[in-house]
Amino acid sequence: MTNGNATVGILMGSDSDLPVMSAAIETLEEFGVRAEVEVCSAHRSPARAAEYARTARERGLRVIICGAGAAAHLAGVIAAETTIPVIGVPIDSSPLKGFDSLLATVQMPPGIPVATMAVGRAGAANAALFAIQILSTADAGLVEKMGAHKRKLADGVARKNARLQEKLAEG
Amino acid sequence: MTNGNATVGILMGSDSDLPVMSAAIETLEEFGVRAEVEVCSAHRSPARAAEYARTARERGLRVIICGAGAAAHLAGVIAAETTIPVIGVPIDSSPLKGFDSLLATVQMPPGIPVATMAVGRAGAANAALFAIQILSTADAGLVEKMGAHKRKLADGVARKNARLQEKLAEG
Amino acid sequence: MTNGNATVGILMGSDSDLPVMSAAIETLEEFGVRAEVEVCSAHRSPARAAEYARTARERGLRVIICGAGAAAHLAGVIAAETTIPVIGVPIDSSPLKGFDSLLATVQMPPGIPVATMAVGRAGAANAALFAIQILSTADAGLVEKMGAHKRKLADGVARKNARLQEKLAEG
Amino acid sequence: MTNGNATVGILMGSDSDLPVMSAAIETLEEFGVRAEVEVCSAHRSPARAAEYARTARERGLRVIICGAGAAAHLAGVIAAETTIPVIGVPIDSSPLKGFDSLLATVQMPPGIPVATMAVGRAGAANAALFAIQILSTADAGLVEKMGAHKRKLADGVARKNARLQEKLAEG
Amino acid sequence: MTNGNATVGILMGSDSDLPVMSAAIETLEEFGVRAEVEVCSAHRSPARAAEYARTARERGLRVIICGAGAAAHLAGVIAAETTIPVIGVPIDSSPLKGFDSLLATVQMPPGIPVATMAVGRAGAANAALFAIQILSTADAGLVEKMGAHKRKLADGVARKNARLQEKLAEG
Amino acid sequence: MTNGNATVGILMGSDSDLPVMSAAIETLEEFGVRAEVEVCSAHRSPARAAEYARTARERGLRVIICGAGAAAHLAGVIAAETTIPVIGVPIDSSPLKGFDSLLATVQMPPGIPVATMAVGRAGAANAALFAIQILSTADAGLVEKMGAHKRKLADGVARKNARLQEKLAEG
Amino acid sequence: MTNGNATVGILMGSDSDLPVMSAAIETLEEFGVRAEVEVCSAHRSPARAAEYARTARERGLRVIICGAGAAAHLAGVIAAETTIPVIGVPIDSSPLKGFDSLLATVQMPPGIPVATMAVGRAGAANAALFAIQILSTADAGLVEKMGAHKRKLADGVARKNARLQEKLAEG
Amino acid sequence: MTNGNATVGILMGSDSDLPVMSAAIETLEEFGVRAEVEVCSAHRSPARAAEYARTARERGLRVIICGAGAAAHLAGVIAAETTIPVIGVPIDSSPLKGFDSLLATVQMPPGIPVATMAVGRAGAANAALFAIQILSTADAGLVEKMGAHKRKLADGVARKNARLQEKLAEG
Repeated sequence: MTNGNATVGILMGSDSDLPVMSAAIETLEEFGVRAEVEVCSAHRSPARAAEYARTARERGLRVIICGAGAAAHLAGVIAAETTIPVIGVPIDSSPLKGFDSLLATVQMPPGIPVATMAVGRAGAANAALFAIQILSTADAGLVEKMGAHKRKLADGVARKNARLQEKLAEG
Repeated sequence: MTNGNATVGILMGSDSDLPVMSAAIETLEEFGVRAEVEVCSAHRSPARAAEYARTARERGLRVIICGAGAAAHLAGVIAAETTIPVIGVPIDSSPLKGFDSLLATVQMPPGIPVATMAVGRAGAANAALFAIQILSTADAGLVEKMGAHKRKLADGVARKNARLQEKLAEG
Repeated sequence: MTNGNATVGILMGSDSDLPVMSAAIETLEEFGVRAEVEVCSAHRSPARAAEYARTARERGLRVIICGAGAAAHLAGVIAAETTIPVIGVPIDSSPLKGFDSLLATVQMPPGIPVATMAVGRAGAANAALFAIQILSTADAGLVEKMGAHKRKLADGVARKNARLQEKLAEG
Repeated sequence: MTNGNATVGILMGSDSDLPVMSAAIETLEEFGVRAEVEVCSAHRSPARAAEYARTARERGLRVIICGAGAAAHLAGVIAAETTIPVIGVPIDSSPLKGFDSLLATVQMPPGIPVATMAVGRAGAANAALFAIQILSTADAGLVEKMGAHKRKLADGVARKNARLQEKLAEG
Repeated sequence: MTNGNATVGILMGSDSDLPVMSAAIETLEEFGVRAEVEVCSAHRSPARAAEYARTARERGLRVIICGAGAAAHLAGVIAAETTIPVIGVPIDSSPLKGFDSLLATVQMPPGIPVATMAVGRAGAANAALFAIQILSTADAGLVEKMGAHKRKLADGVARKNARLQEKLAEG
Repeated sequence: MTNGNATVGILMGSDSDLPVMSAAIETLEEFGVRAEVEVCSAHRSPARAAEYARTARERGLRVIICGAGAAAHLAGVIAAETTIPVIGVPIDSSPLKGFDSLLATVQMPPGIPVATMAVGRAGAANAALFAIQILSTADAGLVEKMGAHKRKLADGVARKNARLQEKLAEG
Repeated sequence: MTNGNATVGILMGSDSDLPVMSAAIETLEEFGVRAEVEVCSAHRSPARAAEYARTARERGLRVIICGAGAAAHLAGVIAAETTIPVIGVPIDSSPLKGFDSLLATVQMPPGIPVATMAVGRAGAANAALFAIQILSTADAGLVEKMGAHKRKLADGVARKNARLQEKLAEG
Repeated sequence: MTNGNATVGILMGSDSDLPVMSAAIETLEEFGVRAEVEVCSAHRSPARAAEYARTARERGLRVIICGAGAAAHLAGVIAAETTIPVIGVPIDSSPLKGFDSLLATVQMPPGIPVATMAVGRAGAANAALFAIQILSTADAGLVEKMGAHKRKLADGVARKNARLQEKLAEG
């Protein structure tokens, strides 16, 4: 529970999840949103996970992103202990290809929502973008940045298209 | 695009989705959050869907909830056209039991997040709660209501437990 | 946390899970093993769930059985907080036919085992039998009862076979 | 929207899909059918995608082939905006092995068909062949070429069989 | 091989598939496209199926629609014997919920495309629409009808929306 | 182990499987092949199951058909103890829709084959037909009957087609 | 249709399936059973496949083994045209990991059985063993060989166990 | 059936399963629990498997752990023959990614429980921990060790977190 003035908390079950979750970290950095990043386990350090969630709001967090694989309970367990929005990123770290972490993250019972993203790195990047969209509800600056980002996406398609035409011309 | 002072938009592919999506409508009502509810199709009325999304922010919407079944593209298509947060509710209306709508909603590519909830009515209720959590980022009153709701959930467990003990005693 | 001299705790997410979990209750009764039965939710009453698990051993429980549907986190969350054996029963209460509760229960990360049974009532009955097998490790009387039960199973096959031959003869 | 006298449009979500979609490009070339190939995203450049689809017929396109992975909405979104036939190729670019892109492409609601092919390169090749079959409805030359192609397939089996017999003889 | 001046052939494995496939029949009728409808089995009457496919073109057929359940081979077997476009409709008639018929229909090897539609009645309706889109390649009248149909779809959304608003007003 | 001069043994895990397995019994009767039918459980009466398999050949059985649901081990356990051909019929009696019994029956390790049929009643009928095909290897009379049966299948298609045409004519 | 005095025919969709299907070839060789091996495609050379099946019995074949991937129709198409037993081996050659070929092979409709084996090389080996079991119905020599094989399997377990103990002792 | 004073038996279908099952062996060693390890096959050496299970209790075993892949029957077959607790570890050794071994292990019918763990090495480690939890029912020393292990898990999270912070600082 390190850098106190973060607005987004990023939790992952193990430091081995960093190659996936770094997509979230990098995206938040791009938007200039402060994040704290921690290893936190629903099963191995449940007291600490509960404590993290219960104190999240008072410590200034506005959104929590949780990445976990297999029977991915982390997001649900965090969501059970706080009323700030929790975003879940299923990670494909078991032999079952992410079907397990996806279903264990998304199928939350009524009362305790977890906003679930795609399995893996695409989901981690989107978790950050969604966190920014949430923050932008009360931050006009972020609305503008999101608008610029959306235009950049469209430009990216144009750029990829140009690259494709070159490849085809060389073909 | 009816009741102009709504802060949450609820879209569904067909009026036959109402028995599922009513869980979202009722939950928002409980919290006193104004919603507008519309039938809107990514495939049958794409121009209207895009228009809805593009004008959402200026019309005062802060969150959009989309319920759809089968190849559920609605949430993704709406998310493509706006930067306000979009929440997806997969509906199990095809023979494939909701696996199709879940995967079509959650597996969004990097850049365009859709916050996906559980398949069916549980997901619809949670979509509303998550929308409220998003709104509460800028609304202390809603934070308090969410806290009360969380306590009510715990009370509900106690009440269900009491009912269970009665059933068991009756045998 | 009612009948203090129970050796097996049975938890379920809702009183609506009773038609499934009653198979566990009845089986324990048949073997004369005392059970306490409670509604307990990993997500709606997390503090109570953690408290239940943390005090389980001192209250005399030797095994805990957890039945849950959808993103079934209950068994995992209980197992995270105690070192007495936890048995999980996936319940098929969502549109995804129990695939979600099965994967969310069984795919536990290394360190925190949950002994997972079949989806539904068959799994609930077996959870009780497995609890008895665990207890029988230190209870010769239960070993004998399990032996008798196994013979009864074989007799049941013979009885069913007789019934089948009758049906076939009747044609 | 480049080479104006194309009759088949091939769209893909990213230039990284080219190794799959090149099977379609090469097959159309073999048959002497003119194609235009573009990067186009249902989510990142929705306006351009809609524009592409709306102007397709007047620009002379007769069939559109769309390759996409994950929550593959491209084919559906294009089909929503045009009445010329749209063929979808699911690409296995996410951890979920193509089950996501297959279901997101094929499970279209009544009213907006997408002709779905197999996941991956086999599907891309067949998308081109199916486009040619569609065009052949009004082009006797293509009927003949398709007939020749079918004979070549049978010859290919004979050739593979000869090669197999050699391998077995060497064995 | 009945009504000789049909342009679309509709095949189904059994007359018990009619409640699904009637969606295709009715849609073709709406557009005034002549269809012939037959029971035809890839496995029980293979010679007849092959004969049907081989003579389809000369008998004036331009498209063939095949509905089948379980290990749905009918569309593939028909496609193997003709070069006119074949559309497959997976039917959910086995305990496996249509996953079997979907995969058996769509995963065709390179060389023999089958244009696969959604599982069940939605897919049957779309098979007819796609057949009409194919025919419209050489029939300006059908292009116009398809355009009208697309407008009707959008109107249908508006009508459903009106109905929804009424329901909501009634509460 | 009743009617000694049977050549086919039909085993099922419970008499409640009879509505599925009766399709096998009836088919064998049609062909005049003698069968014995028993309830037999891999798990509840393993010694009896092993004994049944070990003595099958000497008692004159030539083929054994095993129907089982859930973790369907019966066919594999029987096949482990005999060298006469074993045919497995997966039954959809658990919430997992037969995916469990199918995979548990078909995925046998190298060395111990089980000839697996479709899930449910279609599979039971085919198990009997396949048993007859095996027996026909040494019985010219059965070859002829199988030929007649195949013609009957084709006739059945014609009959169903006639019925379909009537239904369509009635409209 | 090469070596005329074969009793088992092995068909595969492509010579690229040989690494899987060689397990069948080698097993038949071990037992001294003559096989003919051919590339044969249900879709690319349907006439040849039908001809192969129709003439199989008169050419002396007693069993046919078919290996195929993706929408694996080969075994079903062969079974449709002959009354000698057909064994299917699903091959995992598509991105869908063999779920497609398994379901397309095993879910045959009533009337036309295909004896399905496990996906991949294990299934190919077992297809050969099952063919031998079928042949052994009329060949006492093969019965003896199968008995010896079964003892060898048990010996193999003992040998593997010895190897395991060595590994464990080495540590 | 080697080292007579073992309290836990570990069975695996082949010595090639050792890289997975070694996680169980190592965990038991860490806790000072004596194990015997054997190759044992439900299908290739059924008599030996049954004998192993039937004599397990008298030989002093208190728990049996079974690792198996594909149609994983080993745990079920062992459980059928003993009343001591049996733990199953599904191994992902077939093309179907462990879905087959998971379902074949967990979906046991009522009467014969198998305590199923996660697919692969995580499951093997947890099988050992669960065996220790069972043994600890009658062994206060193991209760203490399990408590220490749980604290070590929490410490491990803290250590991983420290490592993560370093990585992020290096960035």
